[in-house]
Amino acid sequence: MKQFNPEGHTNHQFDVELNDVKHKVMTMGGLVESMVSDGLEALLTMNTELGTKVCEDDKTVNKLELEIDRECTRILARRQPAASDLRMVLAIIKTISDLERIGDEAEKLGRISLQMAEETDMPHYYKDLRHLGDHVKTMLREALDAFTRMDVEAAFSTAAKDEAIDTEYANLSRLLISHMMEHPALLSHALNMSWCARSLERIADHACNICEYVIYLVEGRDIRHADLDEMRKQILPAKHG
Amino acid sequence: MKQFNPEGHTNHQFDVELNDVKHKVMTMGGLVESMVSDGLEALLTMNTELGTKVCEDDKTVNKLELEIDRECTRILARRQPAASDLRMVLAIIKTISDLERIGDEAEKLGRISLQMAEETDMPHYYKDLRHLGDHVKTMLREALDAFTRMDVEAAFSTAAKDEAIDTEYANLSRLLISHMMEHPALLSHALNMSWCARSLERIADHACNICEYVIYLVEGRDIRHADLDEMRKQILPAKHG
Repeated sequence: MKQFNPEGHTNHQFDVELNDVKHKVMTMGGLVESMVSDGLEALLTMNTELGTKVCEDDKTVNKLELEIDRECTRILARRQPAASDLRMVLAIIKTISDLERIGDEAEKLGRISLQMAEETDMPHYYKDLRHLGDHVKTMLREALDAFTRMDVEAAFSTAAKDEAIDTEYANLSRLLISHMMEHPALLSHALNMSWCARSLERIADHACNICEYVIYLVEGRDIRHADLDEMRKQILPAKHG
Repeated sequence: MKQFNPEGHTNHQFDVELNDVKHKVMTMGGLVESMVSDGLEALLTMNTELGTKVCEDDKTVNKLELEIDRECTRILARRQPAASDLRMVLAIIKTISDLERIGDEAEKLGRISLQMAEETDMPHYYKDLRHLGDHVKTMLREALDAFTRMDVEAAFSTAAKDEAIDTEYANLSRLLISHMMEHPALLSHALNMSWCARSLERIADHACNICEYVIYLVEGRDIRHADLDEMRKQILPAKHG
């Protein structure tokens, strides 16, 4: 289907505008990535300065979301993109909503770290929380890379990591519950930690969503709610088998 | 700006297609609403049948999300709507993502109810959980009504309820923490309840998002992350003052 091209330079202008938007998405992605890192660090090292910074950064993330969303709407209205260009704009609209929610979860880590800054003990489950956090950070990094490079294979292998993170989260939850049972006096501390673990697990879910948008964008296949292995078999062998 | 109208009936066809999509959004909204209701009931009355039903319903909700999303993309590609029509399609794309997440939270209530069906005690905090659940259900109902009627005033007053629900949730959380401290043996039960309370609180957040889309749609103003009272003063007096 030919596109309506009233000004004779739609495609060039479209590319310029879309690149600008993409660039902003990368900036937003980089910012939430550092928020996750800072939030975790603030929590594990009782660093109030870092905790405050994460809460401040969340405002920038929110502003970026509104700004990018507005630009995407303007592009849709003025450039009326079709096919893969349209999919790209829609994928960006969805991606920034996930990035914003990742920012919210990271901000929770920061906020909880500020609440706990008075306490000085370092329970043994901190190691496990750091472990989970490191895996989630890697997953987020890889999801953003897959998005930048529009790499379907990387998107699949990154999304597949969500299962291991779910297991790790479940194990940590069990550990926290036994800790609460053994030390009822430290219950509210351990409970806070379990909210943080939940936030990390949700960040991984959002990273997984971003991978799904990459696959949708490149392949035109919406794999949400589908079996990942099955979809991978259907999509990848045709290209790399 | 005039629209490109290659087939001479874009507007009529567009209306037909948009109405069809809107109808599906209502169906999806009705379904997640009953899921929240059933999930809460399953939890509070240990009704395993209802718990299983909620988990099944979530699959239908997921299917509806994909279907509506696909139709919205098709409408954007073929009808290239502008101005308020474009905003409507974008608001629908965002709304169904919130509805899908409400479905996920309701499914968690159902899943936890199935895990707990063996236990028979009825702790005193059940009353408070039901209370919170009832308020969240009302808020969701009102948000969906505001969406159906595109009622900005209703959207504002519904969104304003989120604060009271946050307070109610915070109180219930405190109650659950003291219960855990007093009865460490029942800790994992109370912890499950606190996950459920969190799910209810998140459902209210999603209902709030839906209200924000209504305001965006009707007024063209994106009020996310803005001060609700301030925005209300700016937008409503001009119309109803």
